[in-house]
Amino acid sequence: MLLKEAFTVLAVESSAGPASCALLRVENGQQQLLASSYVNTGLTHSQTLLPMIEHTLGDAGLSFDSVDTLAVSVGPGSFTGVRIGVSTMKGLAFAQNLPCVPISTLAGMARRWEGVPFTGRILAAMDARCRQIYTATFLAENGVVTRLTPDEALPMEEVKTRLLSELGPILLIGDGAEVCYKAWQGVVPELQIASPEWRYQHAVGVAREAVVAIQMGETVSGAELLPAYLRLPQAERELRRKQQQQ
Amino acid sequence: MLLKEAFTVLAVESSAGPASCALLRVENGQQQLLASSYVNTGLTHSQTLLPMIEHTLGDAGLSFDSVDTLAVSVGPGSFTGVRIGVSTMKGLAFAQNLPCVPISTLAGMARRWEGVPFTGRILAAMDARCRQIYTATFLAENGVVTRLTPDEALPMEEVKTRLLSELGPILLIGDGAEVCYKAWQGVVPELQIASPEWRYQHAVGVAREAVVAIQMGETVSGAELLPAYLRLPQAERELRRKQQQQ
Repeated sequence: MLLKEAFTVLAVESSAGPASCALLRVENGQQQLLASSYVNTGLTHSQTLLPMIEHTLGDAGLSFDSVDTLAVSVGPGSFTGVRIGVSTMKGLAFAQNLPCVPISTLAGMARRWEGVPFTGRILAAMDARCRQIYTATFLAENGVVTRLTPDEALPMEEVKTRLLSELGPILLIGDGAEVCYKAWQGVVPELQIASPEWRYQHAVGVAREAVVAIQMGETVSGAELLPAYLRLPQAERELRRKQQQQ
Repeated sequence: MLLKEAFTVLAVESSAGPASCALLRVENGQQQLLASSYVNTGLTHSQTLLPMIEHTLGDAGLSFDSVDTLAVSVGPGSFTGVRIGVSTMKGLAFAQNLPCVPISTLAGMARRWEGVPFTGRILAAMDARCRQIYTATFLAENGVVTRLTPDEALPMEEVKTRLLSELGPILLIGDGAEVCYKAWQGVVPELQIASPEWRYQHAVGVAREAVVAIQMGETVSGAELLPAYLRLPQAERELRRKQQQQ
């Protein structure tokens, strides 16, 4: 197996309110964050994302020619946000003929906890409305984060039942963390919620999550890069419901 | 006591290799990170810092007029890096007539750990060469970080002896974390080192550390903003030694 040993990845995360991008350099097994930018002001990602990518490259004294691979969180998340992130990366991939890595939003946010001295389960949760969450569970042990369950859209009640069937600390992250914490506090033992700085997705986690896939050569073309919504957009769900009623 | 309830702080951190800036909005006791940027490519801070501040404000759709207070890490750290950060903020403070908050580099990096489910001592360490570190110890408990010791320049041997006199997990952060970890591994029990993403200083921690001082009105003018090196620069130390020998 020949691992790719030196490369620069440009990662983008726009699956919720904040948008961010990160430039990560990997060389001889060492990762160095060259530059990153983050914004959370309610401005639409279609306005902020490309200028942010451009000046982040500029901050690092680099151009697009220095980027080897693109990584983007493809969902679950805001349908509009995910589409803007994926479309932007499709455009860049096409223009620069670059390979892409699609990253689960939940896996990217859990990866930020790699190297943190917390032992227990990390529950990544995004609010999917209607008392549902997009969720996945990860095990954090000795600074290593590994996935325990796939990305799913589940009723909160079902997730709570699952959590109660096992022991140990549970750390809530993601924009659904607060709604889960309020609902389960005092019911689920050893429940904790991450502080806002650590709670939400950031492109640095997307870049880190992409490294293994890139080293294994598991990339896709820009054309193959697709959102992974877990659920159909509300408009399509309503259309299908109407069609079934006819 | 009248606390200042709504304000926006622009924070800068350039005390070591990386440079970063952050825009934090505080309103009704809630903190929101509006935007942040980070760069670590070996380019000099005198080239990168002001353009980075400018486009971070731009990302957030804000101008300097929206900034109420400036915060900057004033040391310990690289003499050149600290001087560039402090000088830049002095310039901005003078031009915009803004109050400033000087922040300890070590306190700023420890503040990033607020809200993380780690209980134990956090040892912030920066390499001061000659087997010395700039260091301060903090207690992390239930997500709250409080200072235990002042900023000091100490021989590593002395810090090790202090650590051995108390029990419990010790987490190393800062650019001196690795040299300490290598020297003390297997000697100091329960020693851990933070992953690179969370090990180094970032302007987000500087902004968070500044919030309490700003709420209490404990600000200084740009003219009063001064570096806090803990030691004299090497050139001055050598000059004094020569003068003493005469």
